[in-house]
Parts: sequence; structure tokens; C-alpha cells
Amino acid sequence: MSRDQKFNDEAAALGHSFDREIKPGGSYAPLVRDGCQLYVSGQVPRVGDTVMVTGTVGTETSLAQAQVAARICAMRGLALIKQALGSLEQVAAMPRINVFVRSSPEFTQQSEVADAASQLIHRVLGPVGVHARTSVGVLQLPKGASVEIDFLATALPSP
Amino acid sequence: MSRDQKFNDEAAALGHSFDREIKPGGSYAPLVRDGCQLYVSGQVPRVGDTVMVTGTVGTETSLAQAQVAARICAMRGLALIKQALGSLEQVAAMPRINVFVRSSPEFTQQSEVADAASQLIHRVLGPVGVHARTSVGVLQLPKGASVEIDFLATALPSP
Amino acid sequence: MSRDQKFNDEAAALGHSFDREIKPGGSYAPLVRDGCQLYVSGQVPRVGDTVMVTGTVGTETSLAQAQVAARICAMRGLALIKQALGSLEQVAAMPRINVFVRSSPEFTQQSEVADAASQLIHRVLGPVGVHARTSVGVLQLPKGASVEIDFLATALPSP
Repeated sequence: MSRDQKFNDEAAALGHSFDREIKPGGSYAPLVRDGCQLYVSGQVPRVGDTVMVTGTVGTETSLAQAQVAARICAMRGLALIKQALGSLEQVAAMPRINVFVRSSPEFTQQSEVADAASQLIHRVLGPVGVHARTSVGVLQLPKGASVEIDFLATALPSP
Repeated sequence: MSRDQKFNDEAAALGHSFDREIKPGGSYAPLVRDGCQLYVSGQVPRVGDTVMVTGTVGTETSLAQAQVAARICAMRGLALIKQALGSLEQVAAMPRINVFVRSSPEFTQQSEVADAASQLIHRVLGPVGVHARTSVGVLQLPKGASVEIDFLATALPSP
Repeated sequence: MSRDQKFNDEAAALGHSFDREIKPGGSYAPLVRDGCQLYVSGQVPRVGDTVMVTGTVGTETSLAQAQVAARICAMRGLALIKQALGSLEQVAAMPRINVFVRSSPEFTQQSEVADAASQLIHRVLGPVGVHARTSVGVLQLPKGASVEIDFLATALPSP
């Protein structure tokens, strides 16, 4: 099964479409390519115009809800890369992701939130999805989102 | 008008000079070049020895003040790149910036703060200033600054 | 004295061994190599299975304790790079580190915490350890750690 088919399976499992254009929430680009490197802006769990998961994780928002948020963020990152390259088959590597979890003072399971994104990336990209990761707990995020994730990927050299 | 002239215009609009040496606030380098890549350390809105904008955005510090802070941070980043390359005309790309806003628990306009930096970068660098961006709300920043921004730029290959 | 010997001296000074395999705390890789670039995941001050320094810096945890935490994080990053390359002599550069300090609302000495990591890196790597740095104060970190640091290094080209 191709990575693009696996991407569609993940979208179906979440019950959302990620085929629409993803617009940035400000004066920046959702993805910038520089040589083979693809820099993906921080993604909040937005579908269309709606941020699907908001609130402070640990009090207002559960670990399970934050994990759904992380999966949506990951799908947005993959969708942007898919749009830029035509297909996820053109991804050579995704060496780093950074995961920011809007956390209550007592919430220390940022890694467990981030795992939901990491596991989705592995399911879709397979071995090229192996990545380094930093997860931290922040006070607040744009639009009150519960999770924000950014990505660095590299593309296969053009033939 | 050259990028360096636009840089001077932005400095005049802010009422500050960014021509002095920018010293780091600790045991690190303000900018490291590795091949064509320029890694710029997190910049707080300091002019000379004074952090111009401090306080928690949303309570002590307004959105408008935070946007001035973001512009000063962006000017410091550009000033360091200008010093390293001799001229901003030597910038090939600025593919990523990261924006950390010291936020009150209710403040969710981190993107609007970051936009002030993004727009300044676009005004000075033009199309090569198009960047991916991550904006988050953090609890505290060095010296009590309201905003901190770091940058990744690439230089044109040497002739 | 080789960098690997200096690394051992720093381990002895901290009273910990960093020779064991360093396992990630989730579904990601502790280090990913992509070409000459080495992306190191965010490291908390863990030795074996124990996070050595936890708590909020400024209230529960002192600046001095946070500096020990930063040194342990730096040693973990160096240990991962040493394992990946066989020897720290193979490091060409370490152009960027990011330092996240779990901070109380009043704690603004994130740079002083990060300096302990930066100075250790300089002691071990010498001139190639010169790095750009971003330090921020966050609300919470995985496992309640007081400090988390990630690293970007580059390797010498293979002979």
C-alpha cells in the first residue's frame, strides 16, 4: 500500500478531509522548500476554519483528546508535504518534529501526547518517518489550541 | 531600493540603531554559520544593554507593545545576518523563524505578535523572506522579555 | 587530550556514567542522521531510568540544581552523538541548541541555566562547539524534568 493510501486511511480514521488547501493563520508560509529541505510551519489541530481541540491539557482537555489533536497536527504536516511534493512517496526523511502541548502545571505526559503524532507518521511513512523529537509543555498556543507541531522533512532528489 | 536601505528604513521607523555589535547574553554565539546555513540565536527585544519590551503579554504588556518587540527581535536577527554576510543582498532564503511570546494564560494572539516580525522580514528581504514559522506562548523569557525569536537563513553561494 | 577523554572527565565530575544505551521516552529516535546532519531529540536530565532533576526552577528547584540538570542534558546529547559517530572527534560542528527551562513565573535566568550546557559543550568540543542558542521558560516538561535541551550537530564527511 502506498504512503498516500495510508495517509487517506488515517484521514478516514480521524473522520476529516485533509485535501483542502491549508492556509496559514498569519503572514507566513505553511511550508518553505530550500533545496531538498522542507520546513513546515507549526500546525494546530485545525480542520477547515475550526480548531478541533482547544483547552489546557490536564484540566480542560484529556490526554486522549490531546492525542487526537496531535494526530490532526501530524496529518496537516503530511498534507502540506504531500501537496508540495505531489506524493508522500517523494519524502526521503522526516528527521525532526517539535511538539508543543498546552499544559496544566501538573501535566507531565507531553511525550505521550507526542507519541500519537509520531506513531501516525511511522504508520504513513514507514522507516523514512523515523524522527528526532522535542516535546515541551507551554502555557498557551495560537487560537487556544491544545497542541502545535512543526516538522522538518527532506525530499528525494529530483530525477 | 536595496535590502540594506530597507533595513535602515525599518530601524528609523523603530527609532533605534542596530549597527552596534550585538552581544549574546551568555556563553554562546549570536550567529553560527555552517556551510551556507546561518543559525541565529534567540533574540530578545534588546537595544544596546536595555531590553525595550518586558512583561507578560495580555496583562502587563499590550498586543501593540508585543508587536514592537517582535519588530526589534526581527531587526536584531537581520542585523546579525547583515554583519555576517556584509549585506542582506547575500541572503538566499530565510526558511524558518520560531517565535516565543511570554503570554498570560488567556492570551491566544501569538500569531498576531509574530506577524509583526514576519511582515518586517518580508518588507526588508522581499520574496526571499518567505518563511515557515512556529509561534507559541511561553511562561517566561530571559531578562523578562516579552518576545524571543530565532532564525534560520541561508546565504548565496560565494562567487 | 581528545574530546572523548574530556567527555569522560565531565562524566566523572557529574558522578554519572553516560556509556549505557540512551533510550527515548516515546515513539521516536534519540538521534536521526540525515546526510551530515545529526538531529538529537530533546534530552531531559535522566541517568538510567531516573530523571535526576525535577521541579519548577525558581521555586522548587534552584538555579544551581538547574545548571546541573543542563550539564546532564548536554552529556546525554554528546553521548548520543559519540555513539552515532564512534568518537566525538568526528563532530564537525554543533551549530544550534535549544534550551527549555521549566520556570516559575518570576524566574528569568534561563540564559544562566543554559550557560551550564553551553560551557560544558565548549569544554568537550573546543572551537567546533560554538553554537547558536535559544533559551525559553516553559510551564512544564516531560516527567516533570527541570530542563530539556535538543541539539543539531554535523559530522565530518566520511573519508
